[in-house]
Amino acid sequence: MSKYWNERVHKLEPYVPGEQPKDKRYIKLNTNENPYPPSPGVLAAIKAAVDDSLRLYPDPEAADLRAALAERFGLSSENIFIGNGSDEVLAFSFMTFFSPDRPVMFADITYSFYKVYANLCLLQADVIPLDDSFKMPVSAFCEPSGGVIIPNPNAPTAQGISIESIRKIIEADPDRVVIIDEAYVNFGGESVVPLVKEYPNLLVVQTLSKFGALAGLRVGFAFGAPELIQGLNRLKNSINSYTIDRLALAGAKAAVEDTEYYKRTAEHIIRTREHTIEKLSEMGFKVIPSEANFIFITHPQYDAEALFHQLREKGILVRYFHQPRISNYLRVSIGSDEEMEAFIQAVADLVKA
Amino acid sequence: MSKYWNERVHKLEPYVPGEQPKDKRYIKLNTNENPYPPSPGVLAAIKAAVDDSLRLYPDPEAADLRAALAERFGLSSENIFIGNGSDEVLAFSFMTFFSPDRPVMFADITYSFYKVYANLCLLQADVIPLDDSFKMPVSAFCEPSGGVIIPNPNAPTAQGISIESIRKIIEADPDRVVIIDEAYVNFGGESVVPLVKEYPNLLVVQTLSKFGALAGLRVGFAFGAPELIQGLNRLKNSINSYTIDRLALAGAKAAVEDTEYYKRTAEHIIRTREHTIEKLSEMGFKVIPSEANFIFITHPQYDAEALFHQLREKGILVRYFHQPRISNYLRVSIGSDEEMEAFIQAVADLVKA
Repeated sequence: MSKYWNERVHKLEPYVPGEQPKDKRYIKLNTNENPYPPSPGVLAAIKAAVDDSLRLYPDPEAADLRAALAERFGLSSENIFIGNGSDEVLAFSFMTFFSPDRPVMFADITYSFYKVYANLCLLQADVIPLDDSFKMPVSAFCEPSGGVIIPNPNAPTAQGISIESIRKIIEADPDRVVIIDEAYVNFGGESVVPLVKEYPNLLVVQTLSKFGALAGLRVGFAFGAPELIQGLNRLKNSINSYTIDRLALAGAKAAVEDTEYYKRTAEHIIRTREHTIEKLSEMGFKVIPSEANFIFITHPQYDAEALFHQLREKGILVRYFHQPRISNYLRVSIGSDEEMEAFIQAVADLVKA
Repeated sequence: MSKYWNERVHKLEPYVPGEQPKDKRYIKLNTNENPYPPSPGVLAAIKAAVDDSLRLYPDPEAADLRAALAERFGLSSENIFIGNGSDEVLAFSFMTFFSPDRPVMFADITYSFYKVYANLCLLQADVIPLDDSFKMPVSAFCEPSGGVIIPNPNAPTAQGISIESIRKIIEADPDRVVIIDEAYVNFGGESVVPLVKEYPNLLVVQTLSKFGALAGLRVGFAFGAPELIQGLNRLKNSINSYTIDRLALAGAKAAVEDTEYYKRTAEHIIRTREHTIEKLSEMGFKVIPSEANFIFITHPQYDAEALFHQLREKGILVRYFHQPRISNYLRVSIGSDEEMEAFIQAVADLVKA
């Protein structure tokens, strides 16, 4: 606390990202990074951009990247906003579309940054409890509110929601913005990006950090009707005209154009996920159905927090959330086959002991 | 306007950056970029960072870069905040240290983003007129307010303010934060970074976009007492945990460590500036004393806006501000010797005609 902070900053409860420890090498299954590298084309495109032109500002409108995304998704550039990772896109969306006078709806078990954004924007939150099997209760999200944000698939549960359910929530009130956060949609979920042409109140957010294997480059997107995108641009241009550097622009464009490479990578991760689920199920773990590059697991006989610490001692990082309803769960990112074998072996040893 | 934007976004008046036209090649003297490239060490450090580790998140605390800056400036890492360009650092500072209940002070002729930030944060602005020679009126800035922001040197005038004057403004009220925006300080001004150890209410903001020749990389810094830096981190971590990508972290660290190269570059720019001023003065231009990598010029017989358009037709971009008191001025970035010869020749032709 400090007398120099304003009231809002005093009341903030900042997000805490998964730990990035430097004390030793860990098998990192705690921040949902892609275990496989960016495509060779991406690395080549970035290297080609490392030159004297770094002295010049980047294109503040990211025109080339937006054109590449428009081409890939069958949209127009006017449907696309680019941000410094999807977290920035989400923060700007909260600042642009939601108001303190009407609550924003999100699930009780969901990406914990939403609560932070609501707090930042002095918004009321209408927190909707997931049902007993951690599914989104669609009818509750159709009740009146000032806006909705739903990840598909959800985090940290990894469970998806159907396009038909999303349509119902969007159609329940055409005057409120519904944000679908598709950070993990490319690992088995179904994207609603095509629906932005149909619904002016739908904003879809994606990122290159997971599927694109570029968490280190910081690029996220929003797809929506032009008036939603214009609102985001007004906000962005009141904070920072140039949020994406020249190298990130070059790398992101190459990633968008190299979909085949990334599809193969995602298919590999899905196979590894299914194998991991099979092995964990044999050990008595309950695994929430996953459409993501991570799984959410619990065991009736073992304490998740204890397992978290025991795995950490064995050099394996997973994510534990000290939070009601999920305090006996672990979120485990899907790593490479070798990393997951090591994880399965470590868990088996702990469960046997 | 859109029914989906909240009230605040409706009222925003976003910043308009200098144009980046793509219709043909211009001599770009309109966005104060460095005419010389980043140091070879910077390009090598970035290239070395283009590898598979881009799949991993960057260090959210930018520990290595902060350590390099601490070393260079004789400070501690706790005194240093890193942002996505100094614009983001400034926006976050407005969001953290200023409140709607007390006005923030800035000059009538200054960096036009300050008004945008004030608007974004719903702040009142106490706008202080520069004196007739465009100097900061120190006593006016010592009057009560909720905060102060002053660029040293000022933009777009390029004129500096003395450290003694800054001390007076800081000491006038130890309970309010004074931000000194040193985007251009390395072209002849004197930095107050050492004073952050003395004054808990001083925040100094710098950037790699000008002196560091890395406008395309998006890195800015704030220096201040640990409690100011903690406030900025609370705000940042409520928006985006990872604002600086891996490549920018690598390049910025190399730039901070390569001060000798950049000092030589700045000295060259200063020599070019003085030569340009001499030539323009011979043509009857009045040039505000410059401590920056740009100059602010006016001519008693020629209309600045007309000159702006005529120069543009000749392929030379400078910046014109349609604004009271400075509507007959042009801001001209200092380019390479060749670029400035072309500019001087073009102006001479226009003035003769």
